Amino acid sequence: MKKVAIIGLGHVGSTTAYTLISKNIVDELVLFDPKENIIEAELNDLMDGQMEQNHQVRLIAPDLAELADTDVIIFSAGDITIFEGNSDRFAELNLTKTLVEEWAPKIKKSGFKGILLNITNPCDVITQYLQELTGFPRERVLGTGTSLDTGRMKHAVSKDLNIHPASIDGYVIGEHGETQFVAWSSVKIDGVPITDTLAAEKLASLEQTARNGGWITFRGKGYTSYGIAVQAARIVAAILADDSLVVPVSHYHPADNCYVGSPAKISSQGLIESLPLSLSDTEQGKWQQTIQKIHLMHKAI
Amino acid sequence: MKKVAIIGLGHVGSTTAYTLISKNIVDELVLFDPKENIIEAELNDLMDGQMEQNHQVRLIAPDLAELADTDVIIFSAGDITIFEGNSDRFAELNLTKTLVEEWAPKIKKSGFKGILLNITNPCDVITQYLQELTGFPRERVLGTGTSLDTGRMKHAVSKDLNIHPASIDGYVIGEHGETQFVAWSSVKIDGVPITDTLAAEKLASLEQTARNGGWITFRGKGYTSYGIAVQAARIVAAILADDSLVVPVSHYHPADNCYVGSPAKISSQGLIESLPLSLSDTEQGKWQQTIQKIHLMHKAI
Amino acid sequence: MKKVAIIGLGHVGSTTAYTLISKNIVDELVLFDPKENIIEAELNDLMDGQMEQNHQVRLIAPDLAELADTDVIIFSAGDITIFEGNSDRFAELNLTKTLVEEWAPKIKKSGFKGILLNITNPCDVITQYLQELTGFPRERVLGTGTSLDTGRMKHAVSKDLNIHPASIDGYVIGEHGETQFVAWSSVKIDGVPITDTLAAEKLASLEQTARNGGWITFRGKGYTSYGIAVQAARIVAAILADDSLVVPVSHYHPADNCYVGSPAKISSQGLIESLPLSLSDTEQGKWQQTIQKIHLMHKAI
Amino acid sequence: MKKVAIIGLGHVGSTTAYTLISKNIVDELVLFDPKENIIEAELNDLMDGQMEQNHQVRLIAPDLAELADTDVIIFSAGDITIFEGNSDRFAELNLTKTLVEEWAPKIKKSGFKGILLNITNPCDVITQYLQELTGFPRERVLGTGTSLDTGRMKHAVSKDLNIHPASIDGYVIGEHGETQFVAWSSVKIDGVPITDTLAAEKLASLEQTARNGGWITFRGKGYTSYGIAVQAARIVAAILADDSLVVPVSHYHPADNCYVGSPAKISSQGLIESLPLSLSDTEQGKWQQTIQKIHLMHKAI
Repeated sequence: MKKVAIIGLGHVGSTTAYTLISKNIVDELVLFDPKENIIEAELNDLMDGQMEQNHQVRLIAPDLAELADTDVIIFSAGDITIFEGNSDRFAELNLTKTLVEEWAPKIKKSGFKGILLNITNPCDVITQYLQELTGFPRERVLGTGTSLDTGRMKHAVSKDLNIHPASIDGYVIGEHGETQFVAWSSVKIDGVPITDTLAAEKLASLEQTARNGGWITFRGKGYTSYGIAVQAARIVAAILADDSLVVPVSHYHPADNCYVGSPAKISSQGLIESLPLSLSDTEQGKWQQTIQKIHLMHKAI
Repeated sequence: MKKVAIIGLGHVGSTTAYTLISKNIVDELVLFDPKENIIEAELNDLMDGQMEQNHQVRLIAPDLAELADTDVIIFSAGDITIFEGNSDRFAELNLTKTLVEEWAPKIKKSGFKGILLNITNPCDVITQYLQELTGFPRERVLGTGTSLDTGRMKHAVSKDLNIHPASIDGYVIGEHGETQFVAWSSVKIDGVPITDTLAAEKLASLEQTARNGGWITFRGKGYTSYGIAVQAARIVAAILADDSLVVPVSHYHPADNCYVGSPAKISSQGLIESLPLSLSDTEQGKWQQTIQKIHLMHKAI
Repeated sequence: MKKVAIIGLGHVGSTTAYTLISKNIVDELVLFDPKENIIEAELNDLMDGQMEQNHQVRLIAPDLAELADTDVIIFSAGDITIFEGNSDRFAELNLTKTLVEEWAPKIKKSGFKGILLNITNPCDVITQYLQELTGFPRERVLGTGTSLDTGRMKHAVSKDLNIHPASIDGYVIGEHGETQFVAWSSVKIDGVPITDTLAAEKLASLEQTARNGGWITFRGKGYTSYGIAVQAARIVAAILADDSLVVPVSHYHPADNCYVGSPAKISSQGLIESLPLSLSDTEQGKWQQTIQKIHLMHKAI
Repeated sequence: MKKVAIIGLGHVGSTTAYTLISKNIVDELVLFDPKENIIEAELNDLMDGQMEQNHQVRLIAPDLAELADTDVIIFSAGDITIFEGNSDRFAELNLTKTLVEEWAPKIKKSGFKGILLNITNPCDVITQYLQELTGFPRERVLGTGTSLDTGRMKHAVSKDLNIHPASIDGYVIGEHGETQFVAWSSVKIDGVPITDTLAAEKLASLEQTARNGGWITFRGKGYTSYGIAVQAARIVAAILADDSLVVPVSHYHPADNCYVGSPAKISSQGLIESLPLSLSDTEQGKWQQTIQKIHLMHKAI
């Protein structure tokens, strides 16, 4: 049985639950949220929705004992809808760090032996704090990091150049926040470096479009849900199926002594390998800035 | 290309859009909503979400001209989140009838030749009103009707008897509202009539549980989304693939001179056949009541 | 990890392997066959085929030690292509019983704790023999039985009446061989007993068409593969996902003291429950005949 | 409705039909083969197999009139099982060119307006001959080319380096035959050129393994089916869904005045764009050789 728990049923946690069920990714799903009536409502709505499916996911009411044999915990606690897209994540940190302090001991005590995937923002710092407070091996604690931002970059490039996103390789890296940046040196269109064909101004404009993407969604509907839910679900799917997916997740970088987003290979054991990038000088400068920002936030805990 | 339009991007319309994309049901999706920033936000979030899919759905900004070759229009306009689960749908009708009056002429004028599937409540009356104002053949205008209610009945029975929902056949029929009822005479567990094995009091209690289901969801999260989105998506899928799916949709019943929910066979031409049910005397009485309620609401337009 | 082993890579075993991979049903697949170059060829062709899939199934070369943590073994050994569709399965039995005698001790010794699903013909007797020689609990040893025959009945009815197969409920039961029969008393079209609307001659003609189905396939291509592979794969999927699927599999009937095909509920524990059928007098006569045939064959081992 | 025709129901055509159905890629499928009993057998087996699917593909007996509104024709005629993997495809050409001469006029006369995808070997020359005899625009006639060979290269690299095939980009190009070669200059592992990390001898050895792959399959089972069926199905899926898939298909190269395999972008209009490759000097030499071979074969028609 493939068993996943979701802690926090805001728009992101709830949409991720729906995605895991409708794409047949899980066999068992445990839902946690501080509000009992929310849990009851989501369990009920999700169950109503799967009545015509052959594959019935066992939906489980919150019970910490269930975590002992859970394969993946998705941590999406916190009122993330308020802050998503906010340019400064410090305020958010004040709330969400307390959620880590509440949940980390419970998760640890439950005997959980799987992979902990954090979505809660500020993603990198919260992922790190979760690792620190649970004491789990670093390769078993990951954050969704810049996976959504990479999707937004592909969206911007795909739309502007009118190409299928599968033709686009490359990554947004760094903090899942304002100091993130597109590592254009890693971006290729059908194998051709994008820097060979597009000028720096054009790339800067595409990066701005990608960055604005989250804001457009946030301002229009008050939160973002589908983009992040899809990323979380595909990371979970890769973990459960032991696929060696390369995806820009937040993971621990020894050289920088912090969690930060960059492409990594993940599997049922969590992090297998962090992929080195050959950054340009400008990009290396940006990398230092994003690392500093993360350290700054981490100190603010 | 399989082309669907959604009019109204509340929780239901938006979740239906997401479901159609993530289950590879459509090739093109046109989104309409009175709020432009909502459209922009949903288009953006849905696009972000499909970057890693091979199959890229073409997401199209609102343009009535697009309806000319659209296969299915999903009508989910209106602030349905406010009224969903409300025991009296008259108030809702006052709002939603004006939306029909706004949209029916536009849809008609667009040259739309496909199937119109209504979700907006009060579902039966609004579906009928859409048919009347567009003048489309009755078999081409359908409502989701008691499909969700049937799912809730299966959920209640499945949970109580601990059986897979695929083992349960049968229908909730009538108004998608308070006068709906489970046609227990139609319900079979692995082919055995449920009335053979369960007493009337037990059935009444299960019916109450099913009815409460919508309320639990509504009170907990303020709306219902997954259950109804799944039903709408599977009806759309059956229409697009020309499958002869039997599903309890709201359709025109000549003998009762109104739209009301009961099992019907649907396909790319819309309604193929309304399936006759052998109702018990008690059920026939309930049927008359639900028909009266629908006529009453229809007069109130 | 969902782990399945297939013993015997003829057309049926090979097509079942392909189906399990292409429908994302398994995570690990171990292949056994007496011919090493066949195994090598199938492993290679199946691997070539999954290069563009996200979900990579781990394909494993034959190793009995792998069976210890395998969830389902599919037993499709034997040169079944020669006899499939043959009206007398005694000759086949002489060959395939020796394969059971070869494999049962190996499977037992491996420490296998999962569900054993037999396809090899004569299906009922071979399934029983596998249970006897392994000594596994009867609920953990099943045969595909009349699941394919039921599919053929649905095909005949669906084609003749021009209805979607999902509208058809009911079963072919008995021996997966000549004495099988359609339990017309169990067949319903959209809930209406088929015996209410079709005369006995018409039903007899439909049964003949269904029965001929296998022959048409066998005579045309020399074997049957897709129909049986799909049935085996959906039984495996139900077992792996712990769905309580009702399907006409061959299972032990205490009253008849043998394995024979009739609808049963299956799940991760194998057989959950044999569903009682209310057979007509004529059908009860046919049931006795099919039981006699199975006993006769069983004695011939 | 998404409509595909398959001409030739050997192992490849038949397995492709099964793949198109089981992956929900088509709505209608027309099957052609010189042997009527083969068609009848495959239609029957495929129908038996889809009885439990919601989505019922309409399977259509051979009728040239059906081609008028068919979206894609798959040409898999010929006794390709005999020659698959054969190192010299001249002999095969003598047979298969006559099949083109038989079918091209029929296809042309049918009023077919879709995309013609050839699998029959020798793939490049036969694709070209099909284009010449039908007179269809070149962008509407394609061959599966080196798509399977590219899969085999990924298989070899993935297995040797123990990495997920999704981490591997790059192509086998040239003739789908003995003169094909891996364009190592195009191959990247997680974005890093493979030539940066592996020595030429290692690459030569991997190329040999990939090349042997087809032989292992062919010698073991007498034909190859899954690898090629998956490639054909994904090309068809991309065409039907208007995805801009980049895949190494055989298409017309004006500079070389022949059909030959190299990466191209395909969509509902067929070929959109041939992707230029920056070949090394050695690779350019190999390219000239493969072009010469194709010209030689073309002259032999």
